Amino acid sequence: MHEVRISTDLRGKNREIAAENRTHLAGHGIVSLNLMSAPGAGKTSLLLRTIPLLAGRHSVGVIEGDIQTTTDAEKVGALGIPVYQIQTGGVCHLDAAMVRSALHELPLDSIKLLFIENVGNLVCPAEFDLGEDARVMLLSVSEGDDKPKKYPLMFRESRLLILNKIDLLPHVSFDIEKARREAREINPKLDIIEISCTTGAGLDRWVAWIEDLVSSIRSG
Amino acid sequence: MHEVRISTDLRGKNREIAAENRTHLAGHGIVSLNLMSAPGAGKTSLLLRTIPLLAGRHSVGVIEGDIQTTTDAEKVGALGIPVYQIQTGGVCHLDAAMVRSALHELPLDSIKLLFIENVGNLVCPAEFDLGEDARVMLLSVSEGDDKPKKYPLMFRESRLLILNKIDLLPHVSFDIEKARREAREINPKLDIIEISCTTGAGLDRWVAWIEDLVSSIRSG
Repeated sequence: MHEVRISTDLRGKNREIAAENRTHLAGHGIVSLNLMSAPGAGKTSLLLRTIPLLAGRHSVGVIEGDIQTTTDAEKVGALGIPVYQIQTGGVCHLDAAMVRSALHELPLDSIKLLFIENVGNLVCPAEFDLGEDARVMLLSVSEGDDKPKKYPLMFRESRLLILNKIDLLPHVSFDIEKARREAREINPKLDIIEISCTTGAGLDRWVAWIEDLVSSIRSG
Repeated sequence: MHEVRISTDLRGKNREIAAENRTHLAGHGIVSLNLMSAPGAGKTSLLLRTIPLLAGRHSVGVIEGDIQTTTDAEKVGALGIPVYQIQTGGVCHLDAAMVRSALHELPLDSIKLLFIENVGNLVCPAEFDLGEDARVMLLSVSEGDDKPKKYPLMFRESRLLILNKIDLLPHVSFDIEKARREAREINPKLDIIEISCTTGAGLDRWVAWIEDLVSSIRSG
């Protein structure tokens, strides 16, 4: 019982800061995406494949969230874009206050598209609004097709579900139609794109999805 | 800051209840294992393979932890053993109070080996003692070999690391020696066993590990 009460207090404060972040980002004309998934679903690999595909069209910045280590930030920073690493020091998700601190360290005037890579966790990140424009979740097919029913909140809160590692489909037991159907039962508006960061399959559709999102936010 | 304070309070109370659980289980001569991993690493599949291998030697019971759904409990219960499903209702880990409630629902006099399958999460479950005798974590090779450094607490808190899905090694980028080395840098005493629930490789060593643990606890 006490946990629910604490959680409500924290979330109320988080919502306030997230609203400030949203205003701050909009003031700089920045579109932002919050990438969420279980550990090892491929968030960093997706960024490493995506950012070069956007080069010349969007000025990209990245906030990396990890419990500790800076390895992901180093990999992404090697692409020559602004990256800020948040180390949560044990906390299992990013929150809006952490992102606010990161925004003060990034060169916001030279960023138009901001990716926020959350801590690898299929549960807690979904409860914390960061001030992003849209949430994108990755599910790798090696994790199993039962995940929408077992972890519904993240599926409900996301605008796009990326089914990653489809190159592994021949080697794992994963019913892609079941996963799509059960994800849409939870969230009928969910967009779904199948990709492989290894082969590059589907990355064109993901980039087109980003372009559509950016256009709709800038025109709206 | 406030989060650390809350967390300390909760953990103090959790430790007390975990100690009660430990006494309660020992009083019934039950050896218990807390299985932890990221979502989809194969905890349920491991139980489904392991329990038949233990038949006739150990009376097994299972506590299944999930945020919602009862699918895992139904799969395991089909093996004809006592199973209790904890639905956390959004909470991202099991805690000692949840396990205490489950212990009151299970036929403890007919159980000698209790598996507690935690919520799929590589972070939070490691912070909560449930009263178990040993913690076992699974890491599937499809999650990537960077996980020990990125999620050190669970590696530090576990007695055994099971590297699962080794049948996928030819299809993923995973340096098994690096994973072993970096896990042991965090926890020099960590036992490590490589298995595949698909092919059955390594399951004999996992069963032998359980037998050794049970013997050492019963003789100690």
